[in-house]
Amino acid sequence: MTQSYGIIIAGGAGTRFWPASRRRSPKQLLALAGDPNEPLLASTVRRLAPLIPPERVFIATGALLSDATAQVIPQVPRAHILAEPVPRNTAACIGWATLSILRKDPEALIAVLPSDHFIRDEPRFLSSVEAALELAKEDYLVTIGIVPERPETGYGYIELGEKLSPRAFVVSRFVEKPDRARALAFVAGGKHLWNAGMFFFRGRAMVEAIRRYMPDLYRGLHEIEEAAARGAEHEVLAKVFEALASISIDHGIMEKADRIAVVTGDFGWNDVGSWESAWELAAKDASNNAVPKDSIVVDARGNYICDRTTLGGKRVYALVGVTDLVLVETDDAVLLIPRERSQDVREVVEQLRARDDKSRL
Amino acid sequence: MTQSYGIIIAGGAGTRFWPASRRRSPKQLLALAGDPNEPLLASTVRRLAPLIPPERVFIATGALLSDATAQVIPQVPRAHILAEPVPRNTAACIGWATLSILRKDPEALIAVLPSDHFIRDEPRFLSSVEAALELAKEDYLVTIGIVPERPETGYGYIELGEKLSPRAFVVSRFVEKPDRARALAFVAGGKHLWNAGMFFFRGRAMVEAIRRYMPDLYRGLHEIEEAAARGAEHEVLAKVFEALASISIDHGIMEKADRIAVVTGDFGWNDVGSWESAWELAAKDASNNAVPKDSIVVDARGNYICDRTTLGGKRVYALVGVTDLVLVETDDAVLLIPRERSQDVREVVEQLRARDDKSRL
Repeated sequence: MTQSYGIIIAGGAGTRFWPASRRRSPKQLLALAGDPNEPLLASTVRRLAPLIPPERVFIATGALLSDATAQVIPQVPRAHILAEPVPRNTAACIGWATLSILRKDPEALIAVLPSDHFIRDEPRFLSSVEAALELAKEDYLVTIGIVPERPETGYGYIELGEKLSPRAFVVSRFVEKPDRARALAFVAGGKHLWNAGMFFFRGRAMVEAIRRYMPDLYRGLHEIEEAAARGAEHEVLAKVFEALASISIDHGIMEKADRIAVVTGDFGWNDVGSWESAWELAAKDASNNAVPKDSIVVDARGNYICDRTTLGGKRVYALVGVTDLVLVETDDAVLLIPRERSQDVREVVEQLRARDDKSRL
Repeated sequence: MTQSYGIIIAGGAGTRFWPASRRRSPKQLLALAGDPNEPLLASTVRRLAPLIPPERVFIATGALLSDATAQVIPQVPRAHILAEPVPRNTAACIGWATLSILRKDPEALIAVLPSDHFIRDEPRFLSSVEAALELAKEDYLVTIGIVPERPETGYGYIELGEKLSPRAFVVSRFVEKPDRARALAFVAGGKHLWNAGMFFFRGRAMVEAIRRYMPDLYRGLHEIEEAAARGAEHEVLAKVFEALASISIDHGIMEKADRIAVVTGDFGWNDVGSWESAWELAAKDASNNAVPKDSIVVDARGNYICDRTTLGGKRVYALVGVTDLVLVETDDAVLLIPRERSQDVREVVEQLRARDDKSRL
């Protein structure tokens, strides 16, 4: 019987959700959407379990994060937490994880999923994953494309080709982040889906694609495999990874390969890309404030407050006459920023880097 | 020799500087301007000392505040801290304190000063006080009027009459808080000063004025004096105070009496009336932010941050793209409000009262 395995991509620099996120506790290790006690990575593993149990899940993460990652998902075997010695984008880490899985099961079907997204309708999500894995059995490289809800210019799009089934299509091409006019046309045209970074394939089909389209990566992975066969994987891992180019699986494989298919996904997906998204997903009062309970709100609208201090829960927040602000507090840092500028938290992190303030990065 | 005594008015509900101020630690017990380690009341006592030493200073405060008050000004004799059983505005407390001083020194000259104002130029302030006390010796009831810096509609004004000396005038009348047009005219005309709640008089002259203009208060004070003579002041104090009307010294005496004089004051006075004033008086960066040191400021202007949490000093504040906001933090409460709405902190305190949240009031 063909078994399915998961590769969950769980790296990250901890920038976008600063000061809650840090190098050592990036977004996927935080509970930023849905269950306030479940980190996004734990949600991802739990959500997938009806199709792929945790003992068949592998986590691609960084050396700095492997211990913290293991703590968040104790149900995943410790040996399945693959710590890249240096970050080299998704093609390298998916390639390495794929080979690690094939060592155990040469017939493996593999689902690659981001660790840090929110999905509202989990049964519909699982149904899409099931359909994608079915197509992968037919030697397609498959992705799930999200039915777009707005003319988003921050995502790549997938252009639909020939219909394979009511919810599956051949991919005509991948489209880079469009400008506003094209994004509007994509949403209106009904022929484009959002690329959400989910991939499904036979392990062997992916290795074959890497051999054809990314020969340097193939050679590096081959070197790792040879070392693994003599029990010395970790001796060559750092050397090989350092020499690899940093290329995404989208650019390196999906945009080049034949037999690429997409399954439509319509299950309340959100990439939780910034504090703005966290506000969108949070419970809100009648004035659209997502604030701690017992807050006092006077003429205040659309604000988001996140108290991660050790004082949290003991404090009453009073908001008077403020609109669309984000206030995030930890024991060593406070961020105050308009919601619509959430992305600019990067500038704060850059200044902390310039200060070499390691404790707050 | 005629000796001078001070009465410092130090009551207050702790509303305007919430959450830093509370019922039990109102404004004058906080360091809100000038030396960040000196509460406003301590500054007031220290500032006056060259003319009136702490051992001749009396503090009019409330029962709830007498211990905390004593801690802030250990140099003032404990017996000089007069705790009103219930607040009855300034006429009652000044009358009571005046009688307490006259018991010790029937010839006393008295300076009444608010406890919670900021004065930048202390030598010039002392010079005005000296001039006011000199006039008081001539049996004037004297006030110091502040040379107005702007058409403020939040203060009462003093209209100048006959000139007594280059810096002293007979008071023609007291004017209630004016509307904007009148305030503009007052500032332009040069005949009006701000009423800053400072009064100077012979103790006996004030008692005589109370006898004439506030006979009910006079009878109450007389009752207290009789009880004091037999060592039973505290037995009648509460009963008498509860029966008194709540009337200010301005309305009760100054607006009615003859021989009222005013000395001009131009010494960098600020009543520290709200978080807005605290921002005005604070050290600011080039973008007018008064924020903790090491703050990261990106496109942010005119903000005021006050961290009174036990985490304070360990936290980096990052402000991105926010303008003219006040953020005040304590261990049990956080206030976020536009600077120009600082007065509306009252609405927050009202909601806390409605909740009967005594620990945060």
